[in-house]
Amino acid sequence: MNTRGILTNFLKKSRRCTFSTACVPAEVRIVEVGPRDGLQNEPKLLATEVKIELINQLSETGLKTIEATSFVSPKWVPQMGDNTQVLQGIRKFDGVSYPVLTPNIKGFESALKAGAKEVAVFGAASDAFSQKNVNCSAAKSIERFRPVLDAAKANNIKVRGYVSTVVGCPYQGPIKPMEVVKVVEALYDMGCYEISLGDTIGVGTPGTIAKMLEEVVRVVPPKKLAGHFHDTYGQALANILTALDYDISVIDSSVSGLGGCPYARGASGNAATEDVVYMLHGMGIKTGVDIEKLISVGRYICLKLGRPSESKVNRAWKGQ
Amino acid sequence: MNTRGILTNFLKKSRRCTFSTACVPAEVRIVEVGPRDGLQNEPKLLATEVKIELINQLSETGLKTIEATSFVSPKWVPQMGDNTQVLQGIRKFDGVSYPVLTPNIKGFESALKAGAKEVAVFGAASDAFSQKNVNCSAAKSIERFRPVLDAAKANNIKVRGYVSTVVGCPYQGPIKPMEVVKVVEALYDMGCYEISLGDTIGVGTPGTIAKMLEEVVRVVPPKKLAGHFHDTYGQALANILTALDYDISVIDSSVSGLGGCPYARGASGNAATEDVVYMLHGMGIKTGVDIEKLISVGRYICLKLGRPSESKVNRAWKGQ
Repeated sequence: MNTRGILTNFLKKSRRCTFSTACVPAEVRIVEVGPRDGLQNEPKLLATEVKIELINQLSETGLKTIEATSFVSPKWVPQMGDNTQVLQGIRKFDGVSYPVLTPNIKGFESALKAGAKEVAVFGAASDAFSQKNVNCSAAKSIERFRPVLDAAKANNIKVRGYVSTVVGCPYQGPIKPMEVVKVVEALYDMGCYEISLGDTIGVGTPGTIAKMLEEVVRVVPPKKLAGHFHDTYGQALANILTALDYDISVIDSSVSGLGGCPYARGASGNAATEDVVYMLHGMGIKTGVDIEKLISVGRYICLKLGRPSESKVNRAWKGQ
Repeated sequence: MNTRGILTNFLKKSRRCTFSTACVPAEVRIVEVGPRDGLQNEPKLLATEVKIELINQLSETGLKTIEATSFVSPKWVPQMGDNTQVLQGIRKFDGVSYPVLTPNIKGFESALKAGAKEVAVFGAASDAFSQKNVNCSAAKSIERFRPVLDAAKANNIKVRGYVSTVVGCPYQGPIKPMEVVKVVEALYDMGCYEISLGDTIGVGTPGTIAKMLEEVVRVVPPKKLAGHFHDTYGQALANILTALDYDISVIDSSVSGLGGCPYARGASGNAATEDVVYMLHGMGIKTGVDIEKLISVGRYICLKLGRPSESKVNRAWKGQ
């Protein structure tokens, strides 16, 4: 029996674990993806000054990473067509990073020109998803990022890697943990400083997320991983709790739960930052985020979008 | 250093726990509270035959406990005024229990006459909440249940105990774990076969729920406890995960997230049974519930109430 077996048996005998109080990280860094992942599928073009105001307000909350925009073709993502204006228009707060998505070298060059100091690349664990979106296998799509990674290194730019469909794919169904491992490992070896594991269609549960993480943490240390969970099936917070249990201390979320995925059926809504921060603070985990200010930002952007917040904390909040 | 300390340190060193896969119960019994807790605050009176149809459909899903109605004064809860007709009108499935709420001996006697085989009593951990609702302290309100417990024993009727406001109270704020312990212990000693711990206003997080459970499981074994979480702040599933971690294997929930609390500000919505079952099944935990059938029931009652389901699983479900 190995150590793991002994521990498991001990825990079974003791009839409970202690994860909630003993085993979670003391601090979590939130990566706010609202301005990019949250807004990219908004059908109605939002004014550039609203996006700038949103990001400026988010910077005031204490968030340390705010994904600002993406440098993709406006043919594919019209909402992000004002990427340069947004990135150049926002106030850059000391100690806050404003990564932008750059799917290829062309996007990277535009981002660099616009003053980006951090970029992100986006791969999928699912071959079917990759085929459908970029017309090649998952492994091949990752290989295509090499020029971006090389150029980033040469320009002293940090690169974050995203892996989507880490437990389920709208075309392929369930995804085997080893498929995720391959893509995560490739991005890590290529030089990504952090890999965000995305349950793009929100089908994961603490069961499937744990099985996936169990394999991934064998090849990449948890401190180099982030959890990115969509709330399509209401599981996002439970999945975040599972990620914390695996010592993952970076969580992606989106103010007021903005967002979704254009290619994935029913993939509406990232985990809402307000709900995530509420949970983390309730667990005594530090985020550095002022929840009152965050709630105001959520209300601001929902007012501009003309719909109610998807954050339950935001809807229930009456100034505690 | 005691065993707990050693374990905690070991876990800290190993940098993760294993709760998701190793330490949760293999089976969970869902207590469906939709027909009572879920409907009691509906302002528009729902037809008795709809309630009966709802319960009959729920019985077909494989649920083993369905709270059917409550025997309270129709002056206080008009929606439950047809309690006798509902309890007598439903089909009683073998192996399914249909508890009813009986706040006092008068209610108990009516329930008995209507054929109830199981009843429930309802106390609060918060003195302020108890004062506001039943005009006496929490301890005193529990003492008032003694005639019900005695009569139940004499009639071979099982009694379930509810404790509300276990982490927060709308009038008193945060609730100390020891206040919960006192009330739980009193109900247990009085003969309740199971005590359901209710976060009535949904303010709890895995942090506060864990702190409360840490104390409660010292006086009542987890197998005699149930978790009853409202999703007001989006924390219900994360809190359920925490309860499972404490070896609690009975979870209250409400089909399509029906319900709330009449006396508590913003206390809308129980955990949705569909979302709970989806999570549990994803963790390999057996519930005996057919999720497809459950989704149909959720859609039936939401159609009758004329509003969308509060269950994210129900809204996203397209026949997986």
